[in-house]
Amino acid sequence: TQQLLSKPSRDAPRARPCRVTTADRKVRKGVTAHSLKDLISKVCDILRLKDKRFSLVLEEDGTMVETEEYFQTLAADTVFMVLQKGQKWQSPSEQQRNRY
Amino acid sequence: TQQLLSKPSRDAPRARPCRVTTADRKVRKGVTAHSLKDLISKVCDILRLKDKRFSLVLEEDGTMVETEEYFQTLAADTVFMVLQKGQKWQSPSEQQRNRY
Repeated sequence: TQQLLSKPSRDAPRARPCRVTTADRKVRKGVTAHSLKDLISKVCDILRLKDKRFSLVLEEDGTMVETEEYFQTLAADTVFMVLQKGQKWQSPSEQQRNRY
Repeated sequence: TQQLLSKPSRDAPRARPCRVTTADRKVRKGVTAHSLKDLISKVCDILRLKDKRFSLVLEEDGTMVETEEYFQTLAADTVFMVLQKGQKWQSPSEQQRNRY
């Protein structure tokens, strides 16, 4: 259940559901990941980012997720945004304004 | 669930998720910390502030966080702002105005 998935595990981290979106918020995909390393590798595959540098931030406020420890504290179904070189996090409203 | 993660532990303080931002709010990173001392040491590393003096305040209203006791009462995912010498807390709207 939701509770079981979100509770930080004491032993081996279980694969948790994550959502991944692009910087323009036009693509949004669900994946599961045991770890930040695992998530990075899956993002690489599903968004075809092989050999491209990117960072992962929280979609809600652009917080950079750089450590396994911090990743493990995040709730199930956290939405991650993929930022490639030159891209920066924007709030949904900023993005809306800049689009027109 | 979210509640389980946010509840301050009664015994050994668990590493809690924190978000750290710079005074200009341009960098925002997720870290975990067991204590205020731990957070200060991690901030030092991730923002490369070795040998620089800084203080930690709450991003929402500039409240200075100076004691371990107060730190332990803060919720998971509290956003801390790092103020270096000469920097002062500004509200997001003040900051926006001063930027242009």
